[in-house]
Amino acid sequence: MASIWNPHFNALSGEYLFVASAKEAKAYRESNPKLPLVSLGIGDVTRPLPQVIVDAIQKAALEMGAPATFRGYPPDGGYPFLREAIARYYRSLGIRLSPDEIFISDGAKSDLGGLLELFGDVPLLLPDPTYPVLRDAALLAGREVWYLPLTAEDGWVPTPEGLPMRPYIIYLCSPNNPTGVAYTKSQLAAWVRYARESGSIILYDAAYGAFASGAVPASIYQMRGSERCAIEIGSFSKMAGFTGMRCGWSILPKALDSKDCSPRALWARRQGSRFNGVGYVISRAAEAALSPQGRMGSAQAIHYYGENLAALRACLDAKGIPYFGGKDAPYLWVKTPHGMSSQEAFRYLLWEHGILVTPGSGFGKAGEGYLRLSAFASHEDTAEAVKRLESLSYPMST
Amino acid sequence: MASIWNPHFNALSGEYLFVASAKEAKAYRESNPKLPLVSLGIGDVTRPLPQVIVDAIQKAALEMGAPATFRGYPPDGGYPFLREAIARYYRSLGIRLSPDEIFISDGAKSDLGGLLELFGDVPLLLPDPTYPVLRDAALLAGREVWYLPLTAEDGWVPTPEGLPMRPYIIYLCSPNNPTGVAYTKSQLAAWVRYARESGSIILYDAAYGAFASGAVPASIYQMRGSERCAIEIGSFSKMAGFTGMRCGWSILPKALDSKDCSPRALWARRQGSRFNGVGYVISRAAEAALSPQGRMGSAQAIHYYGENLAALRACLDAKGIPYFGGKDAPYLWVKTPHGMSSQEAFRYLLWEHGILVTPGSGFGKAGEGYLRLSAFASHEDTAEAVKRLESLSYPMST
Repeated sequence: MASIWNPHFNALSGEYLFVASAKEAKAYRESNPKLPLVSLGIGDVTRPLPQVIVDAIQKAALEMGAPATFRGYPPDGGYPFLREAIARYYRSLGIRLSPDEIFISDGAKSDLGGLLELFGDVPLLLPDPTYPVLRDAALLAGREVWYLPLTAEDGWVPTPEGLPMRPYIIYLCSPNNPTGVAYTKSQLAAWVRYARESGSIILYDAAYGAFASGAVPASIYQMRGSERCAIEIGSFSKMAGFTGMRCGWSILPKALDSKDCSPRALWARRQGSRFNGVGYVISRAAEAALSPQGRMGSAQAIHYYGENLAALRACLDAKGIPYFGGKDAPYLWVKTPHGMSSQEAFRYLLWEHGILVTPGSGFGKAGEGYLRLSAFASHEDTAEAVKRLESLSYPMST
Repeated sequence: MASIWNPHFNALSGEYLFVASAKEAKAYRESNPKLPLVSLGIGDVTRPLPQVIVDAIQKAALEMGAPATFRGYPPDGGYPFLREAIARYYRSLGIRLSPDEIFISDGAKSDLGGLLELFGDVPLLLPDPTYPVLRDAALLAGREVWYLPLTAEDGWVPTPEGLPMRPYIIYLCSPNNPTGVAYTKSQLAAWVRYARESGSIILYDAAYGAFASGAVPASIYQMRGSERCAIEIGSFSKMAGFTGMRCGWSILPKALDSKDCSPRALWARRQGSRFNGVGYVISRAAEAALSPQGRMGSAQAIHYYGENLAALRACLDAKGIPYFGGKDAPYLWVKTPHGMSSQEAFRYLLWEHGILVTPGSGFGKAGEGYLRLSAFASHEDTAEAVKRLESLSYPMST
């Protein structure tokens, strides 16, 4: 008798990337090392929530404890007050959206996988290296995945040049995880043009949009015509330190509708059956994150992480270690010491120097020979990591 | 060019059941009716959270606002303190589980759909009527669905008698939504026996377990051998008034492992790629719901809803209206006035009497001719609904 379990699990790596890293970090800690671990590993924030958000949670908790103000099931698509607050946030980027084009989620990760269910038998086009969630979700569903291998020569920016004119689901993430590179307007314009001409849909991961300086787009909807070919996935995680709160959103513009199909209606239907919305307490916290005080708190946190980026860049520059990114995104994409694979360098830095990073090969084959360094640590940990990197006797340059 | 969108959306009804009901209720309210709406409709709780949970939320908010106690990404599988609290809860039912067999989720609805992804090309066996989430998820994924039509004659309890000996994914929900009927030990034992013999896996929806009196099982794991053929999905929603908080769990026992496959490991892998865990604030709230004070609060709420059930049963009994359930579950499954379809009766009660119920046909073809009444309203609303039902001039008996 054949197994009743999904055979596509065999197509996945044994463990989700960050689960595997966390296990190795735990092994290191439990080995009683001389050097305490400093983590430039998983892209998790470390700054506490601003007071305005703490206050919003506490107020919402009181409401949930009183009969007159108790709230049960949230609306599947999200509380109107939060959809409106996100529409206002987009307005500050010069983008007009209707609140009912915005769907609240428990985070970009959940939505990225879920959005694939909107599509029929269309291959997923995935830059390599990539944030691994869409790859895993596509493989699990038995969906065809086409890779676009990136290189240092092209600056780690994918281009549609040379692609056949056929429809794909195109995953783009900018500012990019893991490379830390942000795509320029003209690079994104080429993708919007290609998507329109080929009948493709772009899934645009804007989770790091808040790190984009004015020079690069923070949202795909800053590109003309994108509302007719792009779904954007946003998140409070990195923007407002919400990794531990779980709140994000997806945008399905009405302009995507054709006479035969409204993707926005499909998503509403999918969420109605598969998701139960984001609760009241977390929704009020997210609303507070978009208040003037909340946005000031976010700006302060992003400035704080920016200081980490500057310290890491200065260290790498001084040692002549090649890297990409680290300006419009909280990640640096760093060449391994020469000859080392990503895994070897990952283990070397962990076990010899107590520095946790993320092996580039975990993000795809093309990431081999690179490491992702995150700027989300505390100033103290970053300074300690910089000190250890500075003292490396191992030749780090190529 | 063929559409790039998922064609299986065409297999779904136009709207998720409760979305459609909510729209009709809104239309009623906006028509300025003489009678204000009383809702015995969607199964949403109405009692406020006990103080111990409000306190836990407020304390967790303070921790999230301080650098030393801030928490980022939660563990994918859930905070250990919550997994342990759920293990203790099961111990109080006489069931021994290890915390790492318990996976925390944002609710049973999300997990029910997600768990289908564990399975290969195996049909879903679904009692009809059924909570519609698994049906929709299976249809969307293009999975084959076999229905087991239930009737009043068999007391709305499915039986495996006469089924071919082949593997299925079997969905069972007891105490049942929508029929309000709880399955007895011997009825469940027949399913466990069948699953073991046929190589099937039971997805056991225990969301209403807290309403089970001692006489009927609250968990499938109260049945011998079930740990080798059943995954249980639990929820804080109805047990602790958490519909607006979003927290549940799934149990994948180690006893499900074979030499070739560990479903528990598959689920850990799936959640690692598709879900980002339940955040700290909500996790602490759920932990508080399982504290002695929290469980006392839950018991009080369940007692409160039990008083509604008693009032509704007394009314139906007095009028001679046939119904099922309403003892070990917060729902009554009520025959429509004779000759009326579920939809006709739904509209009649709404537009003529201002009472919102749920049409039985929304739960499946076999639910035609029935209505689901919920006991989750306030005492006041329930009393008002009873008053209106008592005054119905329309013949309600068959």
